[in-house]
Amino acid sequence: MTTTSQPVPPPPAPDAETRVSGDHHESLRLWLRLMTCTLMIERDVRARLRERFAITLPRFDLLAQLERYPQGLRMGELSRRLMVTGGNVTGLTNELVAEGLVLRRPLAGDRRAHAVRLTAKGRRAFDAMAAEHERWIVRMFSGVPAADRARLYALLGSVKSQLRSPENVERITHGDHR
Amino acid sequence: MTTTSQPVPPPPAPDAETRVSGDHHESLRLWLRLMTCTLMIERDVRARLRERFAITLPRFDLLAQLERYPQGLRMGELSRRLMVTGGNVTGLTNELVAEGLVLRRPLAGDRRAHAVRLTAKGRRAFDAMAAEHERWIVRMFSGVPAADRARLYALLGSVKSQLRSPENVERITHGDHR
Repeated sequence: MTTTSQPVPPPPAPDAETRVSGDHHESLRLWLRLMTCTLMIERDVRARLRERFAITLPRFDLLAQLERYPQGLRMGELSRRLMVTGGNVTGLTNELVAEGLVLRRPLAGDRRAHAVRLTAKGRRAFDAMAAEHERWIVRMFSGVPAADRARLYALLGSVKSQLRSPENVERITHGDHR
Repeated sequence: MTTTSQPVPPPPAPDAETRVSGDHHESLRLWLRLMTCTLMIERDVRARLRERFAITLPRFDLLAQLERYPQGLRMGELSRRLMVTGGNVTGLTNELVAEGLVLRRPLAGDRRAHAVRLTAKGRRAFDAMAAEHERWIVRMFSGVPAADRARLYALLGSVKSQLRSPENVERITHGDHR
């Protein structure tokens, strides 16, 4: 090296910025993959629900939320718990009421608030759908070894609790977009 | 035990069915957690995109797809690649064309087919949004150790390839709902 007349540029050393930049792409790739997996399964479930039970995913999701609350849920609470976007809760509820799957009653002591719950017919219909839905999901994951599913479940648990961490919630609440 | 007059029922032994049933709940829980994580992040991204750039997630997603294809994408191809549901592709494209972010041109040799691509203005707008979007994502995942993110990425990769396995595709294509 001492014989060359050209100064030799030092090799690019990993520094704070290259590390951050690597982190960036890696988290973004992780998010895109997470979203892709979710959407692949969701698309499949959507198609199957439509084909087998002529029901949309938001309706199925609404029934699923009510199933856990036999005493009923307030409309606002139901709205917060719904996982799937698409269709407003009032519209969805009206349709399900018209089909006799769901009941809406004013809440005692608050005339403006309503509680929604499954009818017996709604519960029977949901139970049949839920059993089949569970089999679809089991099939979809059956090629992933049980130990990997358990690891994935645990890792997603830590993502979830990070997303709920005070720091994240703080940023979201205060619109800190840095 | 020989002194009792009542026949003692044998304890329930774990068998094929209890195992399957355990599997069921475990895969279902995994799916619900996967969906929850995705929706938590998506909700946050949706709110930030609206607040910062007055753009919806489906529009951002459409621009993101085009960004990778400077030569443009056919409408059908664009539709297949869109990850986010909501808003049909033609409607979204029309809006983005009207705003000068996207161009639609008939394809040579096929008058019915159109290709869509970003304009220079669209690319500049998207680049600014994408950089910020990436920072949001990095922040959201920053509480999860890098090694865990890498594990998660790998495990989701195996889920994704399982979902694309011939067995799964076969079932979906042939409407096998078992």
